[in-house]
Amino acid sequence: MPEIRPTALSKRPRRKLQTPNPEVRARLMDAAIDVLKEHGFPALRIEEIVERAGLSVGTFYLYFDSKADLFVAMVTEYTQRLIDRISKAYEGDDHVAVRMSRGLEAYLDFVEEYEKGFLYFVSAADNIETSVGRLSTWVFQQHAAILQPLVEKAQADGDMKKMDPELVAQALLGLAQHMAAFWLQHRERLPREKLRDFMNMFTAFGLSPASY
Amino acid sequence: MPEIRPTALSKRPRRKLQTPNPEVRARLMDAAIDVLKEHGFPALRIEEIVERAGLSVGTFYLYFDSKADLFVAMVTEYTQRLIDRISKAYEGDDHVAVRMSRGLEAYLDFVEEYEKGFLYFVSAADNIETSVGRLSTWVFQQHAAILQPLVEKAQADGDMKKMDPELVAQALLGLAQHMAAFWLQHRERLPREKLRDFMNMFTAFGLSPASY
Repeated sequence: MPEIRPTALSKRPRRKLQTPNPEVRARLMDAAIDVLKEHGFPALRIEEIVERAGLSVGTFYLYFDSKADLFVAMVTEYTQRLIDRISKAYEGDDHVAVRMSRGLEAYLDFVEEYEKGFLYFVSAADNIETSVGRLSTWVFQQHAAILQPLVEKAQADGDMKKMDPELVAQALLGLAQHMAAFWLQHRERLPREKLRDFMNMFTAFGLSPASY
Repeated sequence: MPEIRPTALSKRPRRKLQTPNPEVRARLMDAAIDVLKEHGFPALRIEEIVERAGLSVGTFYLYFDSKADLFVAMVTEYTQRLIDRISKAYEGDDHVAVRMSRGLEAYLDFVEEYEKGFLYFVSAADNIETSVGRLSTWVFQQHAAILQPLVEKAQADGDMKKMDPELVAQALLGLAQHMAAFWLQHRERLPREKLRDFMNMFTAFGLSPASY
């Protein structure tokens, strides 16, 4: 995957490392995720990240231009991890509805695990332009790239209604993101199982009383 | 409706008018909408608004604290207009699917008319805290307040599957906003009729080949 950077660069360009150490970068990202899980992104301080990682602020700036650059790197990295988990959930010979339901569970596991980061991503990613376009659009594209082939295969097998596969994927992804954010903000009265059952029923059979 | 203001206030509080003139306020908002339609919100300049309204910058600041304050006022005002249009579309004795389809048409008319403003709203409203909570949440609540009773009535009449009406409303609204934004960004290859037919089919019957 190409390195993705925000297009609004900091005024002072980062000194480039001849041989960046992937382990150092990973240590900084791991520390950032720990801090993010606790406090969310707006309150995240670079000092706290480097302290937790046992590194210096100078080292941080050898690897990232800015807090925005770190955020884009985190979204890129964790989107890849999420896509790997969902791909795994889609595997197997079960009916497409079962596989999609497993994908939704993997998605809900992920947003629950990274709740603060996910909610910040939902609120901010529409406004972040990067070297590969708008950050939210890029994330949707990554998801669609694994969901749309599943939809096309299911339609070819007669397991799904023939509708435009791109629109089907967009609808499922937009719905999942919106409802996951709604769930996280109303968890005291909305159990995860209730949301999951609703999503599975709604996406398979819609609202018509005749259809189930 | 109470006046809604962003909570991040400008440093210098606005001088309050003893008797604000609703016509002057409306002239400023109308001029702002004209400018917004052409250039979008980030490029919107207060100088251009007051020039178009034939008023002074000083007058602008008697009515609005800041550009953010103006944006919240515009979202409040235009959400009310949109809700009025959709309420009208929901009226009548037709089947709920027909009434909801008319509501979707009214929504697509609106987002097409205010395309630049709508896309900016979608990208920014999650990050704007106001005196009535997050701006995007408030807008969803206004929509849900007219959609949820329609859902409850349809379920009571046996015209819709019995599912949690709050989740049904959230799903329909989240889906409509995501798909409308996707449509506006891909209009060259996605005709409005295709999007509308997909939405009506998906929300009524879902993806299962058995359900239609």
